Amino acid sequence: MVKQPNPTRRSERSRQAILTAARELISEVGYAKLTIEAIAARAGVGKQTIYRWWSSKGAVIFDAFLALSETGPELSTALPDTGDVETDLKAVMRATVAEFADPAFEGPIRALNTEIINDPALAAQYREKLADPLDEAKKTRLRSAQRAGQLAADADLDLALELLYAPLYQRWLLRSGPLTPQYADTLVDVFLKAMRPEGRRS
Amino acid sequence: MVKQPNPTRRSERSRQAILTAARELISEVGYAKLTIEAIAARAGVGKQTIYRWWSSKGAVIFDAFLALSETGPELSTALPDTGDVETDLKAVMRATVAEFADPAFEGPIRALNTEIINDPALAAQYREKLADPLDEAKKTRLRSAQRAGQLAADADLDLALELLYAPLYQRWLLRSGPLTPQYADTLVDVFLKAMRPEGRRS
Repeated sequence: MVKQPNPTRRSERSRQAILTAARELISEVGYAKLTIEAIAARAGVGKQTIYRWWSSKGAVIFDAFLALSETGPELSTALPDTGDVETDLKAVMRATVAEFADPAFEGPIRALNTEIINDPALAAQYREKLADPLDEAKKTRLRSAQRAGQLAADADLDLALELLYAPLYQRWLLRSGPLTPQYADTLVDVFLKAMRPEGRRS
Repeated sequence: MVKQPNPTRRSERSRQAILTAARELISEVGYAKLTIEAIAARAGVGKQTIYRWWSSKGAVIFDAFLALSETGPELSTALPDTGDVETDLKAVMRATVAEFADPAFEGPIRALNTEIINDPALAAQYREKLADPLDEAKKTRLRSAQRAGQLAADADLDLALELLYAPLYQRWLLRSGPLTPQYADTLVDVFLKAMRPEGRRS
C-alpha cells in the first residue's frame, strides 16, 4: 500500500509558508507593492491556495501579524511590576520604541494598520483579538500604580493609554520624528505628570 | 474668424472637476474602492487627462486635500488668543473633533493618511506644505501661553502638539472611540496638567 502524505500536516506547512512569505515580503517591498502573486511564488503554492483560506490581502496580513504576536512574548506576558511605575513604564516604552524602529517588525504592523484604517470590520477584529488583550495587561499595571498612589485614583485608563501610546504611534506612522530611548523616557515623564494624583509633585 | 475656447481656462476647469470628483468619491465609496477610472468618469474627462497631471491616485488625493485646505479657514488663520489658553484650546479642539467626525471632511484626510503612511516622499511633501505651517500657527499660541505663565517655559512644543493631537488622531484613524466635545475638553485638561509650570496647580 502506498503511503499517503498527511493532508492536514501539508496544509499547515503551506499555511505557515504563506504567512512567513507575507511577512518577509512586506519588510522587503513594503505594503503598496505586495501582491498575492508574490506571496504565492515565495511560499511555493498556487494563488488559489491563498484565496481558499483568505478573502483578501488584508486578511493574509492580519493572520501573519497574529502569528507573529503569538510567537512573541507580548500577548502572554504581563507588564513588569517592581513597584516603581516610572521604571517599569520606561522599560516597556523603550522596548516598544525599539520594536517600532525595527523594519522587520514594523513592516507588517504598518501594513496591518493601513488595512485597519480603511476596513472597520477588520478594525473591530483587530481590537478584539489583539489590541484589547494587550490594553488589558497594560491597565492591570496602571491599576497597581493607582493603588500605590502613583497615578490618580480616578484616572480614565483608556485615555491614559492613548496619552502614553498615541504620540509614539503617530510619530511612527507618519515618520514625523525619531524613535529613540530618550523619546520613550520623555513620553513616560509627561504621562506621569498628566496622570499623577492632584496635590502631588514629582 | 472662429473664436477658440481658452485652453488655460478649460484646463483649470478640468482640474477643479477632477479634484472635486476625487473628494466626492472618497466620501462616497472610501479610499480602497476609489479608482482613477471613476474619478475620470465623474469629472467628465479621459483617464489620460488625469495621468497627464498626476502620477498616481495618491498624488490626486494630495492635491484634492490641499485644495480643500486652501478654501478653509485653517491655513490662513492663527489660533484664537483671548489670553485664556484653556478656553482657546477647547474651542480649537472641539472644532477639530467636529471636523473629524464629519464624513465629507474626514474621508479625504483618511485617504491622504493611507497614502502618507506608505509613501515617505509624499509624507515629507505633506509635512512641508500642510502640517508644518499648521503646527507653526499652533506653536505661536502655545508660546503666548508660555509667556503668560500658563505652560511650562521649557516645554518641548513639538512634543506638546503630539500630546494634544495624537490621541485624537489615533482614535479617529482606528475608530477606537467616540469623537465628542467632551473628549476634546478632556484632552485639553490632561494636556494642560502635563504642560503646566512646576509648582503650579490648577
